[in-house]
Amino acid sequence: MLTFYYAPNSCSTAAHIVLEEAGAEYEPVKVDFTAAEQHGPAFRAINPRGKVPVLRDGERTVTENVAIQFHLTERFPEARLRPSDPAGQVRWLSTLCWLASTVQPDARHITRPENYSDDPATHPALVAKGHKTLTRLMGELDAMLAPGPWILGDDYSTADPYALVFTGVAKKVGIDLSPFANIAAWTDRCIARPAVRKILAMECNALLNPPGIAPGTAD
Amino acid sequence: MLTFYYAPNSCSTAAHIVLEEAGAEYEPVKVDFTAAEQHGPAFRAINPRGKVPVLRDGERTVTENVAIQFHLTERFPEARLRPSDPAGQVRWLSTLCWLASTVQPDARHITRPENYSDDPATHPALVAKGHKTLTRLMGELDAMLAPGPWILGDDYSTADPYALVFTGVAKKVGIDLSPFANIAAWTDRCIARPAVRKILAMECNALLNPPGIAPGTAD
Repeated sequence: MLTFYYAPNSCSTAAHIVLEEAGAEYEPVKVDFTAAEQHGPAFRAINPRGKVPVLRDGERTVTENVAIQFHLTERFPEARLRPSDPAGQVRWLSTLCWLASTVQPDARHITRPENYSDDPATHPALVAKGHKTLTRLMGELDAMLAPGPWILGDDYSTADPYALVFTGVAKKVGIDLSPFANIAAWTDRCIARPAVRKILAMECNALLNPPGIAPGTAD
Repeated sequence: MLTFYYAPNSCSTAAHIVLEEAGAEYEPVKVDFTAAEQHGPAFRAINPRGKVPVLRDGERTVTENVAIQFHLTERFPEARLRPSDPAGQVRWLSTLCWLASTVQPDARHITRPENYSDDPATHPALVAKGHKTLTRLMGELDAMLAPGPWILGDDYSTADPYALVFTGVAKKVGIDLSPFANIAAWTDRCIARPAVRKILAMECNALLNPPGIAPGTAD
């Protein structure tokens, strides 16, 4: 049995979508960040780092988004959510790691400047630079999507929902995505997938709003 | 033929050590950050992101530290630089991703505050917070090393030289590592390995200084 710990509209959305795409049977457990549940003793017993996503698979606990995606693609190979050839797999992993180690930390300066400076007077400068950096990274993503239709080319992979998380963040923080036509077309393709649409709706994600699904469907 | 692009005492040190541990034949190419070579047209043609490490393997170009380590462990399986069982592999990948997506970006606030704010007046606050965060992360690493002798337990893996890079950064920026006895013992074990010692000496790494190898051996 799989148990998946997530917070709506955090980076856990990516692994959440992957679970759906894989057709996995799993129990989703929402960690309420607004109530700081991630820092409470119950969740700290599951992940001492106080972060989502976390996947429990029997006796095993898997942390870190990329490792969870790797594990799910190993466990559900028939879902073909990563390339099957060695060269493609390394390129897939490289793309995931770029998202995890560059895009996500850079975006976090906009949403969590307090993580990087204890002086609130410095936060506007962090947010401003974060906007510049995330805009540049969206340009990089747009260029990666030029061949299309998916990030790695012909085949959809977990890199698509993972990247989608950060276009959602960019939209939410007010970055103008209109210059990025490839991102726009790819976002539409992603949202047309039932698994993606289901999780974005459940999490009230900004990418579905507007036009979107009625907020009443969210948890 | 493998070609490895690196900058001394950057995160590329990890993959550099892995190449040596694997007994790979490779051509090391130094990218001179002091001359901003990473932003020049020659290197940008190899990696448009202007970052090291980069591994060329025949026609293929592999970027991102974790993906390079993955590729090298696939290519040189006899070196046993990652666990052979599926559960161990996921734990190895999770550890690499924690280093890549948490430890490295957090440490970079100390060494490159200009990446995160255009206002130099804010940089001391970023550096100060970075020190606090990296000290906390060194505590986390110290706890991970308690069972020992290596990060994943009984067997050395690429996670060891990768983590060693950041203890080197911590030492270089003046973080007091004396409370972390597990890190100290593990650092000694790492440095006792010929491959580690060779690359740290070649790159004039702070972990060998003092007592160290004569600086004259560095490139």
